[in-house]
Amino acid sequence: MAEYNPLPLLMVSEQMAKLPGIGMKSAGRLAYHILNMPEEEVAVFARTILEARKAVRFCKVCQNFTEQEVCSLCDDERRDHKTICVVEAPKDVSAFERAGGFDGVYHVLHGLLSPADGITPDDIRIRELMARLSGEVDEVIMATNPTIEGETTASYISRLIKPLGIRVTRLAYGLPAGSALEYADEVTLQRALENRNEL
Amino acid sequence: MAEYNPLPLLMVSEQMAKLPGIGMKSAGRLAYHILNMPEEEVAVFARTILEARKAVRFCKVCQNFTEQEVCSLCDDERRDHKTICVVEAPKDVSAFERAGGFDGVYHVLHGLLSPADGITPDDIRIRELMARLSGEVDEVIMATNPTIEGETTASYISRLIKPLGIRVTRLAYGLPAGSALEYADEVTLQRALENRNEL
Repeated sequence: MAEYNPLPLLMVSEQMAKLPGIGMKSAGRLAYHILNMPEEEVAVFARTILEARKAVRFCKVCQNFTEQEVCSLCDDERRDHKTICVVEAPKDVSAFERAGGFDGVYHVLHGLLSPADGITPDDIRIRELMARLSGEVDEVIMATNPTIEGETTASYISRLIKPLGIRVTRLAYGLPAGSALEYADEVTLQRALENRNEL
Repeated sequence: MAEYNPLPLLMVSEQMAKLPGIGMKSAGRLAYHILNMPEEEVAVFARTILEARKAVRFCKVCQNFTEQEVCSLCDDERRDHKTICVVEAPKDVSAFERAGGFDGVYHVLHGLLSPADGITPDDIRIRELMARLSGEVDEVIMATNPTIEGETTASYISRLIKPLGIRVTRLAYGLPAGSALEYADEVTLQRALENRNEL
């Protein structure tokens, strides 16, 4: 006997299952929830998502999501536009802004180089970064994750920039604050030792 | 320094975070994915969900989700309409239909009694079940989950139905097929023993 699923439940499940990290079981649970929501709430949900998607654009300077031509960070004259912090994704910009302490500007790559996944320099916003360097830029900080892809991307971009005579730096490796030395992995510990500072 | 989040990302994140089981971190990840989807796909996503919600109704017989007045199972004359299998949710109907072997009809309660959560008989579709029993019904099978709420609901409904002279049964407890006896919990093992059958 074939499985019986009411059509509306099936339709919503299928859409939810297209999202990353949502399997058929979660999709069914979400669909059930949505069909039980008041219709007006579902209308707001659907409308907000579509309107946000329609309104979103990439900041023509830093490539971060924005609803303006130039995002509010790039448009802020009080920030130091000579220092560019290069990150993988918009959430990394949020992380730096939450942490505080950086008053330069950003560049969002929207991905990392990954030969294994077929992601090449043309697939991420490297060309847009290079185009920003013709002006008065003193330093580019490579702030990609300390992973293989993050390192590959940082060193690739670094090799492109150095010939321009612009300083390129990398976030420090070391022990995370509040962590215990005994739980640190070998690479982290080695780097923390190599990069030790005078007291 | 306040956290910086592009407005479109924030708008979509907020909507996604309203769904059950989706925290702020997952919501952000889903929002990022959605803002990177082609606009036409997002339009289909939003439209499908809203249209499904608009189209969905409760089968006026069994209360399952359907886009018709009476669902295709209740509308099927080859099924045994004298036997009603009472379940908590639409997914339970799918489970029975997938398993096969039942040719009666269903009744979907859309919830279980739970005094702790303030869910009373008026909050689930018990009244609609009772209204179906005026006709020619031979048996009502209580197929709620073997949990405290499932048992409470089954015995509550059973007490309502028995005075009508209609047979009320309960799904058997026992060892799940393919399982190992040593891993069965005590209650399951005790019930399996009590309900042992002749060979």
